Amino acid sequence: MAAWTQRLAGVRGVLLDISGVLYDSGADGGVPIAGSVEAVARLKQSQLKVRFCTNESQKSRGVLVGLLRRLGFDISEGEVTAPAPATCQLLRERGLRPHLLVHDGIRSEFDEIDTSNPNCVVIADAVDDFSYQNMNKAFQVLMELENPVLISLGRGRYYKETSGLMLDVGPYMKALEYACGIKAEVVGKPSPEFFKSALHEMGLEAHQAIMIGDDIVGDIGGAQRCGIRGLQVRTGKFRPSDEHHPEVKADGYVDNLAEAVDLLLLHVDQ
Amino acid sequence: MAAWTQRLAGVRGVLLDISGVLYDSGADGGVPIAGSVEAVARLKQSQLKVRFCTNESQKSRGVLVGLLRRLGFDISEGEVTAPAPATCQLLRERGLRPHLLVHDGIRSEFDEIDTSNPNCVVIADAVDDFSYQNMNKAFQVLMELENPVLISLGRGRYYKETSGLMLDVGPYMKALEYACGIKAEVVGKPSPEFFKSALHEMGLEAHQAIMIGDDIVGDIGGAQRCGIRGLQVRTGKFRPSDEHHPEVKADGYVDNLAEAVDLLLLHVDQ
Repeated sequence: MAAWTQRLAGVRGVLLDISGVLYDSGADGGVPIAGSVEAVARLKQSQLKVRFCTNESQKSRGVLVGLLRRLGFDISEGEVTAPAPATCQLLRERGLRPHLLVHDGIRSEFDEIDTSNPNCVVIADAVDDFSYQNMNKAFQVLMELENPVLISLGRGRYYKETSGLMLDVGPYMKALEYACGIKAEVVGKPSPEFFKSALHEMGLEAHQAIMIGDDIVGDIGGAQRCGIRGLQVRTGKFRPSDEHHPEVKADGYVDNLAEAVDLLLLHVDQ
Repeated sequence: MAAWTQRLAGVRGVLLDISGVLYDSGADGGVPIAGSVEAVARLKQSQLKVRFCTNESQKSRGVLVGLLRRLGFDISEGEVTAPAPATCQLLRERGLRPHLLVHDGIRSEFDEIDTSNPNCVVIADAVDDFSYQNMNKAFQVLMELENPVLISLGRGRYYKETSGLMLDVGPYMKALEYACGIKAEVVGKPSPEFFKSALHEMGLEAHQAIMIGDDIVGDIGGAQRCGIRGLQVRTGKFRPSDEHHPEVKADGYVDNLAEAVDLLLLHVDQ
């Protein structure tokens, strides 16, 4: 692989995944990943632009940011690109009224959306609310529609909590796709629109940005398909086999966010 | 389409799907489909061999047969080919110890199977037991295995109960396949081994048999891939679009089992 100076040349801004990079979430609120609080602080003191780009769809942005601030992170709501607000915009643009299969923690994000007489289904990381009854209800709504529309907030396979690996929204999206013979529309990583909107909010071009994430497909593969470089951290849901992924090769692998920031501050022209 | 006499020439035995053909299942035990009790009786009085070929995996064969007999059907346990006994045989042959994600109604079928220290997951139509927690447990078991083995009792998308359409095991199989990046082994329709075992139990060759079912893919497509003819009934989960299915064309469509039996008794040489 080329030297870091070459691999990081021209980087002007950093997209940070949250879960598995900043902290490991958990029923207890979660714990920061060692060195990440300081790493974010150092990044923000640098000339690099910083934006948080998450598929979090269990908690509203407000709740997520409050939790991260309590863990010591320097982060504000306006710095976060998340799927729920992007979904609300899409629903409004297309006159869609969703049946929501989402966690209670994120329901408030849809307060302004008309959910009467649904003409689509929106699915997010619903955790325990992925009961058979709730899945069957979403399935029945889709089967009643002439043109069934399923919108999924992310398509992650799983994430890592302090208690272990947890199924994410992706498997449930696949279940409904198969049951109804349809293809979901994904809002969130790895959707190109989502990365582009984060870039737009930073005022950068794709080649000026680098994504740091723990998900080889959603974070790294997704960013690279938009022309954004991608560094994978060996924290969160990282598994050693990711470094030999059949389809995605990161622009670099680092032990954690702290190492990524060391490298960036050392090698990027500021 | 050719005349019925031609389409039914040489048929010596009939494979009957149960749910959606004999009866519509439901929380109340279900109701017979009009004419089906008499149709089964007439078939059994004829020279045609009859075997029931079901993917039922919510109830044990004993419970299912008891329920059908109470509804008036002439059926005995030995006449039924079902996935649970076939799975037990496969587990024994390969020394597999399953983690079971199944409905309580079928757990007794696995009484003789060693489930300690699991080295595979067996998934069946678990209905309400498809909770997030149970799905996550099955996922975690698979992720711990070096060579994860997932065995699915059928791969149906949904079935019809008296209360409406219900998600079958297939969508949950797809969810675990996607979450773990693996491919499940299916025991039951449309697996060729399953049809072959039903043929073997009838002592017939594929070209001598006809499958009657409500599932265009699982029943009709599965049977045809084995060289067995397939008639689809317009009961159960049948939907009008099935008659224009992009991949599967039944050898005939009939309103219900009664019409199928009328045609068989009229046109088959006895």
